[in-house]
Amino acid sequence: MAAGIAAELAKKQKEISVAEFFERNKHILGFDSMTKSIITGVKEAVDNALDACEEAEILPEIYVQIDALGDNEYRLVVEDNGPGIMRRQVPNVFGRLLYGSRFHTIRQTRGQQGIGISAVVMYGQLTTGKPAIIRSKVAGEDVAHEFELFLNTKMNRPEKIREEPIVWSGKEHGTRIEVCLKGRVTRGKQSVAEYLRGTAIVNPHATISYKDPFGGTLFFQRSTTIVPPKTREIKPHPHGIELGMLMKMLKSTKARKLSGFLSTEFSSVSAARAKQICEKAGLDPDANPKRLSLEEVKGLLAAFSQTRLRSPDTSCLSPIGARLIKLSLKNVLGDLRPEFYAPPVTRSPKVYSGNPFQVEAGIVYGGDLRSDSPVEILRFANRVPLMYQQGACAITRAIEDIDWRPYGLDQKGGRGIPHGPAIIMVHIASTKIPFTSEAKEAVANVEEITEEVKLALRECARKLRLHLSKEKRRSKVREKFDIAQRLLPEIARKSAEILDRPVPDVTPIMTKVMDVVEVSEKLEYHKKTRTVESVITIRNYRPKSQSIQFYAVIPPEYVGAESLDPPPKRKRKGGRYMWEFKRLPSNESRTIKLLLRGVEPGEYDETEFYVEGVDPLHLLGAEPLPGDWDLDGLDTTLEDFSRGKRPQPPKPPRADEEDGPAGNTTGGRAKAGGGAG
Amino acid sequence: MAAGIAAELAKKQKEISVAEFFERNKHILGFDSMTKSIITGVKEAVDNALDACEEAEILPEIYVQIDALGDNEYRLVVEDNGPGIMRRQVPNVFGRLLYGSRFHTIRQTRGQQGIGISAVVMYGQLTTGKPAIIRSKVAGEDVAHEFELFLNTKMNRPEKIREEPIVWSGKEHGTRIEVCLKGRVTRGKQSVAEYLRGTAIVNPHATISYKDPFGGTLFFQRSTTIVPPKTREIKPHPHGIELGMLMKMLKSTKARKLSGFLSTEFSSVSAARAKQICEKAGLDPDANPKRLSLEEVKGLLAAFSQTRLRSPDTSCLSPIGARLIKLSLKNVLGDLRPEFYAPPVTRSPKVYSGNPFQVEAGIVYGGDLRSDSPVEILRFANRVPLMYQQGACAITRAIEDIDWRPYGLDQKGGRGIPHGPAIIMVHIASTKIPFTSEAKEAVANVEEITEEVKLALRECARKLRLHLSKEKRRSKVREKFDIAQRLLPEIARKSAEILDRPVPDVTPIMTKVMDVVEVSEKLEYHKKTRTVESVITIRNYRPKSQSIQFYAVIPPEYVGAESLDPPPKRKRKGGRYMWEFKRLPSNESRTIKLLLRGVEPGEYDETEFYVEGVDPLHLLGAEPLPGDWDLDGLDTTLEDFSRGKRPQPPKPPRADEEDGPAGNTTGGRAKAGGGAG
Repeated sequence: MAAGIAAELAKKQKEISVAEFFERNKHILGFDSMTKSIITGVKEAVDNALDACEEAEILPEIYVQIDALGDNEYRLVVEDNGPGIMRRQVPNVFGRLLYGSRFHTIRQTRGQQGIGISAVVMYGQLTTGKPAIIRSKVAGEDVAHEFELFLNTKMNRPEKIREEPIVWSGKEHGTRIEVCLKGRVTRGKQSVAEYLRGTAIVNPHATISYKDPFGGTLFFQRSTTIVPPKTREIKPHPHGIELGMLMKMLKSTKARKLSGFLSTEFSSVSAARAKQICEKAGLDPDANPKRLSLEEVKGLLAAFSQTRLRSPDTSCLSPIGARLIKLSLKNVLGDLRPEFYAPPVTRSPKVYSGNPFQVEAGIVYGGDLRSDSPVEILRFANRVPLMYQQGACAITRAIEDIDWRPYGLDQKGGRGIPHGPAIIMVHIASTKIPFTSEAKEAVANVEEITEEVKLALRECARKLRLHLSKEKRRSKVREKFDIAQRLLPEIARKSAEILDRPVPDVTPIMTKVMDVVEVSEKLEYHKKTRTVESVITIRNYRPKSQSIQFYAVIPPEYVGAESLDPPPKRKRKGGRYMWEFKRLPSNESRTIKLLLRGVEPGEYDETEFYVEGVDPLHLLGAEPLPGDWDLDGLDTTLEDFSRGKRPQPPKPPRADEEDGPAGNTTGGRAKAGGGAG
Repeated sequence: MAAGIAAELAKKQKEISVAEFFERNKHILGFDSMTKSIITGVKEAVDNALDACEEAEILPEIYVQIDALGDNEYRLVVEDNGPGIMRRQVPNVFGRLLYGSRFHTIRQTRGQQGIGISAVVMYGQLTTGKPAIIRSKVAGEDVAHEFELFLNTKMNRPEKIREEPIVWSGKEHGTRIEVCLKGRVTRGKQSVAEYLRGTAIVNPHATISYKDPFGGTLFFQRSTTIVPPKTREIKPHPHGIELGMLMKMLKSTKARKLSGFLSTEFSSVSAARAKQICEKAGLDPDANPKRLSLEEVKGLLAAFSQTRLRSPDTSCLSPIGARLIKLSLKNVLGDLRPEFYAPPVTRSPKVYSGNPFQVEAGIVYGGDLRSDSPVEILRFANRVPLMYQQGACAITRAIEDIDWRPYGLDQKGGRGIPHGPAIIMVHIASTKIPFTSEAKEAVANVEEITEEVKLALRECARKLRLHLSKEKRRSKVREKFDIAQRLLPEIARKSAEILDRPVPDVTPIMTKVMDVVEVSEKLEYHKKTRTVESVITIRNYRPKSQSIQFYAVIPPEYVGAESLDPPPKRKRKGGRYMWEFKRLPSNESRTIKLLLRGVEPGEYDETEFYVEGVDPLHLLGAEPLPGDWDLDGLDTTLEDFSRGKRPQPPKPPRADEEDGPAGNTTGGRAKAGGGAG
């Protein structure tokens, strides 16, 4: 019996075409519901369009149109102004799975695996029986070419139905795909419009227009004209490379010597480092790399992890940058009139399994956002909005793991998605986003990434907390202030009248009643010069004179482009400037003027202040200085304090913990001097 | 510029090997963390072993062993007593992705896509550089064969390092895989042990032993010796088939006439139905199926959906069955001494997109289960435990969508995962489970499936609710009863003593105080005869005589194998039997004796009772009859009542809403007669 079964099974064993596999499992590619199928179609086409434009350093202009054909069938058109696709490549690019140009390169792109757009063509033919129509024009060529294509799933090859040269009037270069698919077009959350809104937020350099099947249109104007710098391909980094991959590289290398192999085929490995690695592994630098034994390769891998190496070159990444995130959040969310945009955070690049990645985060708070529901989460990966599988995503996990209560959001038990009038935005950029499936809907829970997201969010949340507590205290003391200011002069006047004496000066009494040092800021934006002028007033409403150390934090992107009057006594890492006011007498004030250059309209809302030397209970409009900030320049977050931890002893700064990235602007900017303790 | 880019990109365009794709994206296959990699390795090997045993109708004996080799490297061994694999097939089965025997067949199996086990081999070589060692013996052959294999990812082909015949002493047939991989072996939740515990629950016919790397062993003895009937391959069903798939079938058919094509290549299509379909589509039954136009094919598809067809043959499915679910839950969870196992529910098969599927559910309540945390969810698909991605799964979605509060579980706002001392178990069986990724960790949110899971859970939850409310009421009235029973005779005695009169009969007063009709049940299990004897007593503790219609529900699997004394007045659909007691005088009782045959030890806990004719406020130990149950035999759930809906007017029963499946036992059983109103 059993023998027969084995033979019977053997007869049925055969190869499965990858296209047939995905045809059967199309839900894995994002075609698992009627609504989602349409969004996936738009997403794949728009992702390709944006990738192509960036490759050619063109400011993208994307046009999306969806027409209802009845019976749940829709025609989807996506057109771009990208560089176009060479005629002979069109069929394979659109009609063959696992065919692409970016699979083996290490740099940040939206598409990578050569599946997406061909899957859309396959889904279209599966549900409507119609071929996709592709038109493409390469700059400098006279005509465009138009194709009608099917995907032969048994062979995983394109089937060309029609190909002809065509005049594409008014178009210099670009690509246009037209595909019919079954689905459902909806409005509201998880719609094409939402997807495009998200795309606009993380692609502030793109202009996107959308004509929906209900007769409506949507238009997102770019909020910057600076094309993100083209990402550069890098070699693999030794940290985190896997044994099998290393063996494969050794097997196929053209290098004759091990040291040469190491220094030419990896990033961040100099000739000196290569020698050092060989030494640690107990291997001859001149050894033939093709002839290493398994044990020797394992030794090499161990030596990698024991060797300090530069972080990978980060020109392979394209973060959006804190400034542009804020600008584009304002651009897209302006209608909700949020009360506060926490200054977005762009973390410095990190590495997981040899893959560089970088996390950015922003929090938008208050205004018309609903305060009685869970916060809205906007997830992005390599400048693409993630619309589905929120529950399965590392970003969500990181948000759920943070105790948001100290930061001013409501959260049951200090775990789970917090409630409150906030939008939390997270962008992960990487040469390789570890998506949980081919549909690229959720980021797998890789520890290094989750941790970075948490750090970014905490940094951002700290700013939200500062804002909220400042607001709260300000309004509380302001109330007292207002009452005193109304009542005291009145009492003085009345008393004087009754006693027939002159009206006394109430200022000293006011001071006694108020008993605060107040910091206030007045901002003025000058559109012509793109500058912000800030006048900061520090007034002593306490009965005694005060010795004050006053700190203002200038966001890193303006450091080097600011004027300060009076000049600060000290400049610290991270744009932290300190002024000292020895003995500010009761009832007197001091003024500091800041001038920041290169500021976009709406970009700058307020300056962070900290004060040392004043009892926090008697401080208004600024926070007490956190811990040992002034001593070693470490970024001790408020959270450490709220948990009652003592600040750690100073550590030497690590090479990869430098200030934020240089930013996307052109103005020359010097770094602030490092923390001379 | 743009032209250059297009040419440059064209040069880089190339095919990507599916193995290289998955090598880079191994997290998609379940290798995204150290812990998970080991569990995935065990899972793929055990799934294959169980599939092979079932194929050959062998009672599976699975042996799993994990040894720590140091430096996060483990050796994993999985051995089965399956039919073995033919020598020439071994390399492809274990060393090539997308190679298998089950991809094109429509029936329920664990593995289908020919990826799993080869992916384990690939992950092993990637992380340890070592080949997998496979040994296999086919029954009747003299020797086993042992292989050492790598997977060449560039070609997606096996690379044979060694092959030799080997004597496998004491082994008649079976397969053994040994693979080294990097990972982490943990204890507790999401561990290999948990995975095997889950596997034991849904495979009560398998014996599983596990030797862990900590020196511990785990052993799950099978709780039944009945091999699940082998699933049979079926043809596609016309309902839900996609246009593109139909076009492909038409293109490659050997049938010469359209009617022949329909009746031979689809399931549930008779020759008569085929003619009817052609007629509805306005097509000639004799037309050449290869020559239909797109519009004609679309018409055919429309005709499919307008034609009533039998549901697909369900011999392609292998549900576990309510009885075995309960037995094996008890077998595996016995240590937690739960208070109540809600009788598991096996729904009748349904269809989504042409794929038959069937949902089963069970709820375990109370005992040592933690009452202050979210309920534990046990998810299964095709008899495989799902360990990860709970948040992304349709099963979880269904649980979150149900308002559990009326069923006795705590749930904030009536949404989300409920809290309470319960385990919720759901099994989905299908010829094609729509997993969200190749790692098969979560079921995609297909509406038909989610709805069926909800129906199964509500049915189960209703039983939990009955149990809880019965318990609650019983204990409440029992308290009153106890007090009365202690006090009244005492008062009577004292009063008689004082008055020097004889002690009066307090029964009438007792009755007045109690004022209930009490139903109680005494169960006795006879191991030898495998029978349960139930004595049901209905006692009237009300001051007046009562006319009572009493219903007992016999679970469908015992219907036809029961003795009833006295015989019921009526038998209704779903094992609902009715006795009538006209004028049961005050203080008298009636007894019903049930004898159920073919009951496994521990299988039968209590009978469901309903009473009509007694004010629910004066009923103890039974529930009032729900709605119009007695009139049309419809299964009106309590939920409809709790929402204040009126019961719907009677509908004719649908063909696919027959009683549960025949069950896996051998005893001949007649169906109870349909509802003669």
